[in-house]
Amino acid sequence: MTTTHDPYTPTPGDRFTFGLWTVGWRALDLFGDPTREPLDPARGVAELARLGAYGVTFHDNDVFPFDADGAERERHIARFRKALDEHGLVVPMATTNLFTHPVFKDGAFTANDRDVRRFALRKVMANVDLAAELGARTYVCWGGREGAESGAAKDVRAALDRYKEAFDILTSYVRDQDYPLRFALEPKPNEPRGDLLLPTIGHALAFIEALEHPELVGLNPEVGHEEMAGLNFAHGLAQALWHGKLFHVDLNGQNGPRFDQDLRFGAGNARGAFWVVDILENGGYDGPRHFDFKPPRTEDDAGVWESARGCMRNYLILREKVRAFRADPEVHEALRAARVDELAQPTLAAGEDLRSLRDEETDVAALASRGMAYERLDQLALEHLYGVR
Amino acid sequence: MTTTHDPYTPTPGDRFTFGLWTVGWRALDLFGDPTREPLDPARGVAELARLGAYGVTFHDNDVFPFDADGAERERHIARFRKALDEHGLVVPMATTNLFTHPVFKDGAFTANDRDVRRFALRKVMANVDLAAELGARTYVCWGGREGAESGAAKDVRAALDRYKEAFDILTSYVRDQDYPLRFALEPKPNEPRGDLLLPTIGHALAFIEALEHPELVGLNPEVGHEEMAGLNFAHGLAQALWHGKLFHVDLNGQNGPRFDQDLRFGAGNARGAFWVVDILENGGYDGPRHFDFKPPRTEDDAGVWESARGCMRNYLILREKVRAFRADPEVHEALRAARVDELAQPTLAAGEDLRSLRDEETDVAALASRGMAYERLDQLALEHLYGVR
Amino acid sequence: MTTTHDPYTPTPGDRFTFGLWTVGWRALDLFGDPTREPLDPARGVAELARLGAYGVTFHDNDVFPFDADGAERERHIARFRKALDEHGLVVPMATTNLFTHPVFKDGAFTANDRDVRRFALRKVMANVDLAAELGARTYVCWGGREGAESGAAKDVRAALDRYKEAFDILTSYVRDQDYPLRFALEPKPNEPRGDLLLPTIGHALAFIEALEHPELVGLNPEVGHEEMAGLNFAHGLAQALWHGKLFHVDLNGQNGPRFDQDLRFGAGNARGAFWVVDILENGGYDGPRHFDFKPPRTEDDAGVWESARGCMRNYLILREKVRAFRADPEVHEALRAARVDELAQPTLAAGEDLRSLRDEETDVAALASRGMAYERLDQLALEHLYGVR
Amino acid sequence: MTTTHDPYTPTPGDRFTFGLWTVGWRALDLFGDPTREPLDPARGVAELARLGAYGVTFHDNDVFPFDADGAERERHIARFRKALDEHGLVVPMATTNLFTHPVFKDGAFTANDRDVRRFALRKVMANVDLAAELGARTYVCWGGREGAESGAAKDVRAALDRYKEAFDILTSYVRDQDYPLRFALEPKPNEPRGDLLLPTIGHALAFIEALEHPELVGLNPEVGHEEMAGLNFAHGLAQALWHGKLFHVDLNGQNGPRFDQDLRFGAGNARGAFWVVDILENGGYDGPRHFDFKPPRTEDDAGVWESARGCMRNYLILREKVRAFRADPEVHEALRAARVDELAQPTLAAGEDLRSLRDEETDVAALASRGMAYERLDQLALEHLYGVR
Repeated sequence: MTTTHDPYTPTPGDRFTFGLWTVGWRALDLFGDPTREPLDPARGVAELARLGAYGVTFHDNDVFPFDADGAERERHIARFRKALDEHGLVVPMATTNLFTHPVFKDGAFTANDRDVRRFALRKVMANVDLAAELGARTYVCWGGREGAESGAAKDVRAALDRYKEAFDILTSYVRDQDYPLRFALEPKPNEPRGDLLLPTIGHALAFIEALEHPELVGLNPEVGHEEMAGLNFAHGLAQALWHGKLFHVDLNGQNGPRFDQDLRFGAGNARGAFWVVDILENGGYDGPRHFDFKPPRTEDDAGVWESARGCMRNYLILREKVRAFRADPEVHEALRAARVDELAQPTLAAGEDLRSLRDEETDVAALASRGMAYERLDQLALEHLYGVR
Repeated sequence: MTTTHDPYTPTPGDRFTFGLWTVGWRALDLFGDPTREPLDPARGVAELARLGAYGVTFHDNDVFPFDADGAERERHIARFRKALDEHGLVVPMATTNLFTHPVFKDGAFTANDRDVRRFALRKVMANVDLAAELGARTYVCWGGREGAESGAAKDVRAALDRYKEAFDILTSYVRDQDYPLRFALEPKPNEPRGDLLLPTIGHALAFIEALEHPELVGLNPEVGHEEMAGLNFAHGLAQALWHGKLFHVDLNGQNGPRFDQDLRFGAGNARGAFWVVDILENGGYDGPRHFDFKPPRTEDDAGVWESARGCMRNYLILREKVRAFRADPEVHEALRAARVDELAQPTLAAGEDLRSLRDEETDVAALASRGMAYERLDQLALEHLYGVR
Repeated sequence: MTTTHDPYTPTPGDRFTFGLWTVGWRALDLFGDPTREPLDPARGVAELARLGAYGVTFHDNDVFPFDADGAERERHIARFRKALDEHGLVVPMATTNLFTHPVFKDGAFTANDRDVRRFALRKVMANVDLAAELGARTYVCWGGREGAESGAAKDVRAALDRYKEAFDILTSYVRDQDYPLRFALEPKPNEPRGDLLLPTIGHALAFIEALEHPELVGLNPEVGHEEMAGLNFAHGLAQALWHGKLFHVDLNGQNGPRFDQDLRFGAGNARGAFWVVDILENGGYDGPRHFDFKPPRTEDDAGVWESARGCMRNYLILREKVRAFRADPEVHEALRAARVDELAQPTLAAGEDLRSLRDEETDVAALASRGMAYERLDQLALEHLYGVR
Repeated sequence: MTTTHDPYTPTPGDRFTFGLWTVGWRALDLFGDPTREPLDPARGVAELARLGAYGVTFHDNDVFPFDADGAERERHIARFRKALDEHGLVVPMATTNLFTHPVFKDGAFTANDRDVRRFALRKVMANVDLAAELGARTYVCWGGREGAESGAAKDVRAALDRYKEAFDILTSYVRDQDYPLRFALEPKPNEPRGDLLLPTIGHALAFIEALEHPELVGLNPEVGHEEMAGLNFAHGLAQALWHGKLFHVDLNGQNGPRFDQDLRFGAGNARGAFWVVDILENGGYDGPRHFDFKPPRTEDDAGVWESARGCMRNYLILREKVRAFRADPEVHEALRAARVDELAQPTLAAGEDLRSLRDEETDVAALASRGMAYERLDQLALEHLYGVR
């Protein structure tokens, strides 16, 4: 089916990236043992390159074990670097595993235990150094277990103080080291903790404004995480872009409020995915298109790559559709009928203030009776999604 | 059951306030006609005073009809004022109805239709004047229909531009008029629109930072609205307080993600309500305890007041419980065992920076094996909630 | 765009039907006044016929007012009949409005008030007579307000006794009258009541088995109602078909757990809609394709018909896709690779019983290592949905 | 705090039981390694006995490893039996682990792979024999991975055929063996699969009616599983009891639609828990009160037992409350005011049929104006929950 002319076969120019932990997920879950063998990171790199990816991203412990000593760490890193060089993949983003080891059972930057917090910062520092060395420009921080199951266990305001302290420390560090790195927070509402801190795009955006170096901190929002809270992900991306804070993005699939499904991109809320690609392509985002998904536990090794391939393919299919939608003259006409352009016009004219409105006459009945013509516009979008226009 | 000595009978000193639209809700819903007669605002004031409330709040059209002319408006306001004076209730907050009339079918401040936006601003201005006149200190803005059902209908970034424009205009106005008013945004994830803008506490907090006069804008979060997104309301309040933005609060009840239930306070997530009262009482909030609920459609007039009475009673019951919880020596001991206090301690000591940690040795295994003792702590909280301690 | 050759323009042979209350919804919701004028049922019939529909369905009070006397009722019915005859539409289904009038505030068949229950039965009887007269074959019962907001208010077991009593009475009646009518229950988890009885397809299926004439009672499941509980609607249809109980279906759109959105069909969970059409087309359902949606409140009269047109169009688009999917040789091959056919084979061979397995040897490791190849199969389905195969 | 006179300290007469897998959960989750050591089943038995439990339940592989040979299996069983005897605990229920091993990655009774289905049946048979030997009366079947992530992967109707086949085989077997065992299905909507078959109490109840020996199959509903679908668990229990199918129950805590939290009983939806205990105590259920929870990953060994203790304590606290509620004269009066008793009265009198109603006159306006007085009734319930009455 896939030929060299297939418009949906990716090339590095499409800037698709994958977490090593995605294709490398052994499919262990809370209820079951792994169904797949460990993936050698070097093979992961090779396969992703073969499929047309542009880069890979990693947690420290995707590349070397948690308890590796210096030499073992270096050996693993060297091997990983070699694979990157051989296959021409880049590492635009890195992150730290602050959730797998039992030491992080109560979180990392906001663990009640101060020694855990110190250890977490040290672990991040080491991997920030490595990230810089490998040329990453974005350092993602998912607060895996920053949260609580019960009300008294976590003093949320104190936790936010510590969270802020951690980012103030880390941003000072990258400034001092002159690393060209920016941090990207990844919000999530719950799981594995009952409730997580900074549960949505909005909470993380607000938090950033309280930091010492807000310019160095932005977001890495994930489709499924917002949809777990029933939120519209494209709307969230739009707000993040509006604040200038969309530093990175995690693409995958989810079916609404339930456990974190991490389906391949496109294989969840298909309609939502259309608007996600629309805002990414047309909203000024210029970072990699990063997939953070989990090939289902039913899949063997072949299924893993099929699933990875599907992520990119679906993005390209949707990209083509949103381009066609935005170029369609009937859509232009429908957008005008829906007065979408009118929203770009300021509500007050130059020189007006609120008092200028005081004596304005409005024909409210006439205004109220104007239909918005959204159904027609949306039907056009849907027919682009369905590929029948 | 309620005697003068009943500790759960409110007095104005408890600062309970109610929206006129709550006890005045005629119980019309999407599927059914009203089950109750209209409530004369003057009677609403009298009954709430009788029950021990401190104040009432209102939308403009709770007091006078949408299409009232000047004289009719004044007549209604005079009557309302008279009732307030007679019964000694105050008006600490007011708001605008920007959602009932068909003219607002696509929102108000972010309607695509510029004429609607201008009309909305004018309507708010008129009511802000009234609010100031009546001594209100908070002006709530719930973006009732600021949102969309479909992807292309609303350019979210343009909508945020217009939303910001509206608040920049309104804050300039209250500064110019020298009104002692602050605005409070009320986030909601969806309903009546498919997806609303500024869907959570977090999104609204972030938005405020982008305004011209952020100091004049804060939040009026509502229990049910956050719980509709599966979010922990007490956590949301804590973050709002952390940002210094908890200007007002809407108390009610909800059973998780579903339609907006507006149950009486306490009659939803009872466990969550305990922590809500805990953070309100102990987190530095000093505004009114405002109820925004709907007496169920099954209730007649007597049921309405029973329901309103229940809101206040449940708050007082829970306030007593959180006080007892926070005073309980066994709780103190359990908090220490859970190292809750340790989170208040900065992670780095004075003079340290990230590099100071580089050579720190951590006994990870020992740290990992320390239990957090949260179950014991939470069981104590639960037993306070259940009233068996 | 729509021409006579457009494959997505419906004809009566497609058997699309609409509730009169859908296109006739005046867009009144809990937070807002109607945005549209009342729709004359005769015009509704004419417009639906023009768009290619096959039939209409109705609640009694969609055709005549709740308090119409006999003569007024007959006048309205005559007018409705005339329109049906003129435009060649049929009435395959009818239902009763047991939720709008305040008398039904606590439900109808399970209202605590016995007089309400008697009145409800009488109202249904009258409309069942009319339904039979108009040639309907299915009588839908949505338990609009059969439920509760609080725990003690409703004795659920007594309510199920009364619910059963109602259906035993009604089925006896249609048998006695020799009406060729069957009843179809419409489950819904919540809204407008806090929790509704018979909340899902499953609960209703179980309930039917306890009735006196289970053969006369089946289901009318609705897309959005099941998705409000996060359930897979296509799975629900499959189970209803498995029990021989899919008597009718309500098609619309929803975005997961939240208020009942009633979006036009296709404009919600697009991916789910593909599988819904697949099971309807290939699972043995032979009733009408009935739309129960609400044209959004933003739409004027033109938007209403655009929205109705979209429902049918999307069904036809999806029908074409599922046919192509089921005919695609690569899909056949992928289904075999996923061993989907093997599930049709009984687990035990003829003559075996459980003891026959006692000494069977299984190479568990080999079995465990077989990949299921579901990702490839699903990607093919998705590409059919996207129209790129 | 706990003394011998503490009314909330359980005794075996309270019939509390625990899954061995609950207190034995090592706190491995999808995102993290175990935080606790393996629990020796014999110690589990001893500790639970010490805390006042009545019995334990188990999956086969809670007692012996998946790949144990006959001798090893016997050794483990002997050791377990010895502990039971020593500590006087019974085994009222047993179940099979059909989800942990990779061989079950696509389910067990409904796996596409026929060899997997045969192996699953054989595994169940072996453990049914053991269950009977140990005196269990209920055999629980949770369809851990019976489900799918994608639409074409599972032919749901074929899957239900196989599911039915499995239960027809198993019920025939226990009849043939003359085991005094009944099966209890445990529904769950999703997790670990995207969508599970028999997702709710209702779906499972309906399924049972299609079996060959429905009298041998009932339900084991779980609080959290129903609440993950936003359903009212007490309502579900009531319907299960109404059908005579509440064979067993799994008690725990959950905070609405999200991942399966398995909190200790009482520590989730506290208000719901009150009504759960009410229906269990007053609805005719006479089986064990079984806890299926997970001590949070933050807890060490001491926390595990604290959490288990809390489950029982909370049940006893709530039992006391529901007894007080049902005995309270003011509640009796409020129930009458809410006409709760009137629902027990048949809608038709003896000798009436639907036609008897034809000419009945109803004063609809009078009926409609009667308030239901549910808020007062519910406030009484809430005050019993809060322990202030």
